[in-house]
Amino acid sequence: MTKVVILGFGNLATHLYRAFTSCEQIQLVQVFNRSIQKIEHLKNEIDITCNLAELKDADIYIISSADDVISLLSNTLNSKDKLVVHTSGSVPLEALSKHKRSGVFYPLQTFSKEKNVAFNAIPICIETKNESDFKLLHLLASEISKEVFRINSEQRKSLHLAAVFVNNFTNHLYHISSEICKDNDIPFDILRPLLIETAEKTKFLTPKDAQTGPARRNDTATINGHLEQLKTEQQKEIYSILSNAIKSTYTK
Amino acid sequence: MTKVVILGFGNLATHLYRAFTSCEQIQLVQVFNRSIQKIEHLKNEIDITCNLAELKDADIYIISSADDVISLLSNTLNSKDKLVVHTSGSVPLEALSKHKRSGVFYPLQTFSKEKNVAFNAIPICIETKNESDFKLLHLLASEISKEVFRINSEQRKSLHLAAVFVNNFTNHLYHISSEICKDNDIPFDILRPLLIETAEKTKFLTPKDAQTGPARRNDTATINGHLEQLKTEQQKEIYSILSNAIKSTYTK
Repeated sequence: MTKVVILGFGNLATHLYRAFTSCEQIQLVQVFNRSIQKIEHLKNEIDITCNLAELKDADIYIISSADDVISLLSNTLNSKDKLVVHTSGSVPLEALSKHKRSGVFYPLQTFSKEKNVAFNAIPICIETKNESDFKLLHLLASEISKEVFRINSEQRKSLHLAAVFVNNFTNHLYHISSEICKDNDIPFDILRPLLIETAEKTKFLTPKDAQTGPARRNDTATINGHLEQLKTEQQKEIYSILSNAIKSTYTK
Repeated sequence: MTKVVILGFGNLATHLYRAFTSCEQIQLVQVFNRSIQKIEHLKNEIDITCNLAELKDADIYIISSADDVISLLSNTLNSKDKLVVHTSGSVPLEALSKHKRSGVFYPLQTFSKEKNVAFNAIPICIETKNESDFKLLHLLASEISKEVFRINSEQRKSLHLAAVFVNNFTNHLYHISSEICKDNDIPFDILRPLLIETAEKTKFLTPKDAQTGPARRNDTATINGHLEQLKTEQQKEIYSILSNAIKSTYTK
């Protein structure tokens, strides 16, 4: 039985809370949050606190706060030589350098409070300062997900960058697309099956092999027609740069 | 019973063929293709031909050829005053102007021969020159899909452009992301649940509301760090332009 304390209660922690409490091999002993109001709804289910001096004993302390307060929280935390990990994709392991035993427990997914996700299929990227702690953290991750990867800090930095492309930037392309639809009285719903299939296709084909469209075909007439249709300079710029990038990928 | 002839046998036609032949209310009477080799495997199932003079009678002739031969095929086709439609997102209805009765039957999805898709959920965008033909084409579309939309040629042009953003450009972002992974010995598999969830999220949130990430938070330190990590000028340019576009979307 692994005893766990969660520190911070944002989107990710909400989902971790659900995953841990429904797992028999994990004993979630406490949730800490600076503002007690935010976790008060948990008080009948679990011990809650806003006072670091009241932290209970645990095998692993999971800091799941905003990136910019991880160090601060780590530096005021007395871990009594137990393992301390954070859950951030972009914060280095060194942010926890105060502690003898530290690590990273980074579930790579986008979380909204409203929408449930099956934790079981979420890749969890783990790393520990001491090799001897790896087994413990791997055990914790394996209890809630079947996709556990050993990823060092340097790789995690790259992974976070790669995630910006497939999540943040892709979502902005969806936004531009939805604006084009709105301007022309077209329900964005029409595009949803296409954008989902585009994502699903990565299971069967590499993105490089899956590429289609006017830029892939070097179809200048269609590209110029599209550029004329676009209403803002920013949209035209994005269209041009991405089309050129596609063209150059296939003429190398 | 609606009698149909398919002309051209690319990816889309392959999927239409499967959808039509498994539908009791549609009688697929013939498949035409310029090269008979490409459709020879169908000869025990259906009448095939490479000769336009041998076309059988049908209620609807569906031209599903490459965009640039639609006009040519249309101009050499004797439709005997039956309905002639094409399946392209980017070719105007006027490409079929030779025929008294014409229309467009545009299933908005990305098709690969290898991967089956449930036609039932694919949006079909339809348009007819004569209002009197709309019902016939709507009936055909409804037999194979529950998502049928009346979309005029102007809207279809915009829809095709919007599709380039959510399909072609998004796929290229996946490609960049996979290159970053490759350069750092990270399996691209780790990112797949994230990119699929990003797409699925559009069912619950508008892309505008779903936006997260460093550009959304105006987190200059992370953005600059990412720019330093990127290896090519083209990747840096794409990163900068998309980040600026996100920033300006939320500071308007």
